Amino acid sequence: MGFTSVQKIRFDDVDGAGIVYYPQFFHLCHAAFEDFFDSAAPVSYPELVRDRRLGFPTVAIESSFSAPLIYGDVAVVELTVHRMGKTSVILGYEIHRKRDGALCFRARVTTVLVSIDTMKPVPLGDEYRALFQRLLSAKK
Amino acid sequence: MGFTSVQKIRFDDVDGAGIVYYPQFFHLCHAAFEDFFDSAAPVSYPELVRDRRLGFPTVAIESSFSAPLIYGDVAVVELTVHRMGKTSVILGYEIHRKRDGALCFRARVTTVLVSIDTMKPVPLGDEYRALFQRLLSAKK
Amino acid sequence: MGFTSVQKIRFDDVDGAGIVYYPQFFHLCHAAFEDFFDSAAPVSYPELVRDRRLGFPTVAIESSFSAPLIYGDVAVVELTVHRMGKTSVILGYEIHRKRDGALCFRARVTTVLVSIDTMKPVPLGDEYRALFQRLLSAKK
Amino acid sequence: MGFTSVQKIRFDDVDGAGIVYYPQFFHLCHAAFEDFFDSAAPVSYPELVRDRRLGFPTVAIESSFSAPLIYGDVAVVELTVHRMGKTSVILGYEIHRKRDGALCFRARVTTVLVSIDTMKPVPLGDEYRALFQRLLSAKK
Repeated sequence: MGFTSVQKIRFDDVDGAGIVYYPQFFHLCHAAFEDFFDSAAPVSYPELVRDRRLGFPTVAIESSFSAPLIYGDVAVVELTVHRMGKTSVILGYEIHRKRDGALCFRARVTTVLVSIDTMKPVPLGDEYRALFQRLLSAKK
Repeated sequence: MGFTSVQKIRFDDVDGAGIVYYPQFFHLCHAAFEDFFDSAAPVSYPELVRDRRLGFPTVAIESSFSAPLIYGDVAVVELTVHRMGKTSVILGYEIHRKRDGALCFRARVTTVLVSIDTMKPVPLGDEYRALFQRLLSAKK
Repeated sequence: MGFTSVQKIRFDDVDGAGIVYYPQFFHLCHAAFEDFFDSAAPVSYPELVRDRRLGFPTVAIESSFSAPLIYGDVAVVELTVHRMGKTSVILGYEIHRKRDGALCFRARVTTVLVSIDTMKPVPLGDEYRALFQRLLSAKK
Repeated sequence: MGFTSVQKIRFDDVDGAGIVYYPQFFHLCHAAFEDFFDSAAPVSYPELVRDRRLGFPTVAIESSFSAPLIYGDVAVVELTVHRMGKTSVILGYEIHRKRDGALCFRARVTTVLVSIDTMKPVPLGDEYRALFQRLLSAKK
């Protein structure tokens, strides 16, 4: 089962062609990731970064864009987990637009738990395994 | 042969972990794409969008992140073309940081020429084929 | 009495000094303005712009910054109206941080109702007067 | 005599009304401020922040917007100094658009030299006085 974050497309999210600037889709995904931490994690993502000096930088992305979002749209961002490795978590994102349910975007985002201070990978402890376990999907 | 665009990392490009926010890498790529049009195309990208009502939205991305950029870094963005289809252009991007030459980011970005008004694909005419031809790399 | 919009400070909102990049304060204000339309106006701000071809561009700002916001903060943005003219609305914004209630930012933002197509001022009709009337503060 | 920074308006700089999102004007100003450091200061602004742990946060703004910028415009940002205090520098910005020379934006931005670690004001030393001295304008 996924985690869902609902986000308004804002006045500045569009580009010169009048649709959401494609890098913003990754921003919507990151905001959903932060919302998931706020909703389910022992610490918020800001606390993880600032207090525990840990983070989940992105190391690889595969994504596809199938329909545009425009100003005034509401993005429904669904976060799942495809797979967990020793230090990595492969996240799945789907973004639908609320007005008609159209799938706009899918991504498979590989993140690695690192120490912010060294930028070296750190094994996922039980706490984070349990956190992401609940988002593990049957989908590959 | 690629096209190179050199861009300063600005005060707002970093995230809460002190490194460039990963969606910004795609912004650096788009800026390089616009710079390439300014440098080599019959019309600038703004003119393409506004006057010709054409655009190259992104439909798919494969990318990897191998080293961070920080505030004060200079990003050297290299644009090549992997392949042209009937309506599509597959772009290749590499971002190195200037201070030490480290490869930070690679991406394979599939774009499609569309009519801005209908968002339907439009065949690449000779003009755009010639434009992208010069960036065609041997690399796959 | 004012309208309040509560907004999370996101991972990308900070700058190279680790605090919210000052232009982002104006973004928080604009988001609150949009939220006010969603909450109280006959049309949303996207509909105003797209369907009615009207907008409220900013023509003047006076603002002061008194305390920083950091990643993980929640911004409480309060919108009031100082004054309405024939075509203009002077908005008041205050941003407090939720964790300790500190006032971070105040602004007096003059906007003018314009036709998006001509960018010329348009008289505020009764509908918009009534809308902003409810935010009219005693404060000058 | 002022310092001039010339900046392209990028694909993502516009808003849902098709003109540059007004908070972006302050971003153009900050980029010009950084460019001035790169051009004239003993250290770059990133080095000032990271190595010397100093910064010039904005504490007050008065600004006016007189003409829009659109996608494809080139912004000519001129930075001057209105006044220096014990710890403060009042900067003046004017942004003209290159295509027709129209004045788009003026601002008077009060900044204070602070320690990044304490966020307390620090006296402007001779080095920074000399740096800003060269931008001191006759204009008030």
